[in-house]
Amino acid sequence: MSRPLVVDSVAALRAQVRDWRRDGLNIAMVPTMGALHDGHISLVEIALEKADRCVVSIFVNPTQFAPSEDLDKYPRQLARDLERLRQAGAQLAFTPAVKQMYPAGFATKISVGGPAAGLESDFRPTFFDGVATVVAKLFLQASPDFAVFGEKDYQQLCVVRQLCRDLDMPVEIIGAPTVRDAHGLAMSSRNAYLGDAELEVARQLNAILRRAAVALAAGTNEDSATAEASRALVKAGFDKVDYVAARESLTLAPWRLGRDGRLLAAAWLGKTRLIDNVEVLSA
Amino acid sequence: MSRPLVVDSVAALRAQVRDWRRDGLNIAMVPTMGALHDGHISLVEIALEKADRCVVSIFVNPTQFAPSEDLDKYPRQLARDLERLRQAGAQLAFTPAVKQMYPAGFATKISVGGPAAGLESDFRPTFFDGVATVVAKLFLQASPDFAVFGEKDYQQLCVVRQLCRDLDMPVEIIGAPTVRDAHGLAMSSRNAYLGDAELEVARQLNAILRRAAVALAAGTNEDSATAEASRALVKAGFDKVDYVAARESLTLAPWRLGRDGRLLAAAWLGKTRLIDNVEVLSA
Repeated sequence: MSRPLVVDSVAALRAQVRDWRRDGLNIAMVPTMGALHDGHISLVEIALEKADRCVVSIFVNPTQFAPSEDLDKYPRQLARDLERLRQAGAQLAFTPAVKQMYPAGFATKISVGGPAAGLESDFRPTFFDGVATVVAKLFLQASPDFAVFGEKDYQQLCVVRQLCRDLDMPVEIIGAPTVRDAHGLAMSSRNAYLGDAELEVARQLNAILRRAAVALAAGTNEDSATAEASRALVKAGFDKVDYVAARESLTLAPWRLGRDGRLLAAAWLGKTRLIDNVEVLSA
Repeated sequence: MSRPLVVDSVAALRAQVRDWRRDGLNIAMVPTMGALHDGHISLVEIALEKADRCVVSIFVNPTQFAPSEDLDKYPRQLARDLERLRQAGAQLAFTPAVKQMYPAGFATKISVGGPAAGLESDFRPTFFDGVATVVAKLFLQASPDFAVFGEKDYQQLCVVRQLCRDLDMPVEIIGAPTVRDAHGLAMSSRNAYLGDAELEVARQLNAILRRAAVALAAGTNEDSATAEASRALVKAGFDKVDYVAARESLTLAPWRLGRDGRLLAAAWLGKTRLIDNVEVLSA
């Protein structure tokens, strides 16, 4: 595979996309914040199954971090990311500077309701405004036919779908299965923050959620099942549980037995916040 | 001129735009709420000077009306509008239903800061959210190369420019001079609400603003000049003045002598609210 073309300006991005379109090629985008892992690479692979060309954006978006969060220490490793993209066959890496994305005087915000309500928003109240605004910008900059997002950030995937439907963005959103290590831990750039002992605890998150999802599908009362899962997380060694909650798969409205559901959770290990989610099978 | 093609679905709109693009034609859009008058027609004429094809949207956008405002009585006259568009040479009228634009579950809002602050927003706090959201949708539906907006709604023009710049919309925004009757009254669909006596009063709005703008350019203190204009409006017969204010032309930040300025006003005649604005020449 050859190295991806690396561009940091919207003009250069659009020029390349225009050339591809003139050649009749279609385009899939994978928005990322860099620190690429196997999860991201699986998104690139799915993108290249759907489209002729894959654009990967690498941009640590400051507007989706709260002042108290880990913007400054978020891992940045561009050279390594570009090597991984070369191996995966992505054709273009878009690496805008913050001032390219948010020039002086920038003053626009997109707020999505519906699936953005609750869960992450209860703990990161401005997070999805930041995500929706940057995703809209990236789509308007690159004008992809497809965009691939991981189910690991399940609520984000639902919010992006809602954004595109509501604003008539001509982009098909593709959700991709979460990539996990051999112990079930979902790949995340934030896993790099974990020490060895924390990693052992983190690896129990998915199993605890899967157990709770089976109980829910079998008819266990929702409050009991999620409370039990929270207790199990603390017992496993998590320091704090932000939420464990069952929701309808598409709308993230309250879940009811017999409907396709998703069980979502966020919990802290020291200063690291992990999220995960699993399917709740309808009976 | 032949009749414009009339479409009410996004799919049909996109199909026509795609055909035009395949033929190498470019496209200008004129978003309207219908009740077309000579001001709108001048926008269509400017659109056809810039582009090969002109798409006019006719959509009375409920989200930019407050509950207390005139959504229900806003004039609707589609047959007459289409005849005027035929005469002007517009090739397509896009007439979506409310449920096409805002289907069940719609949950996204775009908020623009900067030029949207103050002036109209002080009296219509949700107005520009409604405008920004519907304009973004229309641009994403039609993907025009250009869009033409009248300077009559001067703050709206500034807000749309900010929206497009901030979200990287690939649309060039063209501001068009206000069309006035022989007495200086700016064309507005809401002029239809005015009785004969009110019309006589309304016709003094522009002259009063022009007089104040000359005074400002000559160095009269801003507070004095705008207060004097407000008094003149009431003396002329206006029932209430929402604001008379000088702002910088591009940013709508506070104006200072020597900078390109705009004097903007909103005032009531009975139940009808009129707005207008004039240039403040820099010395």
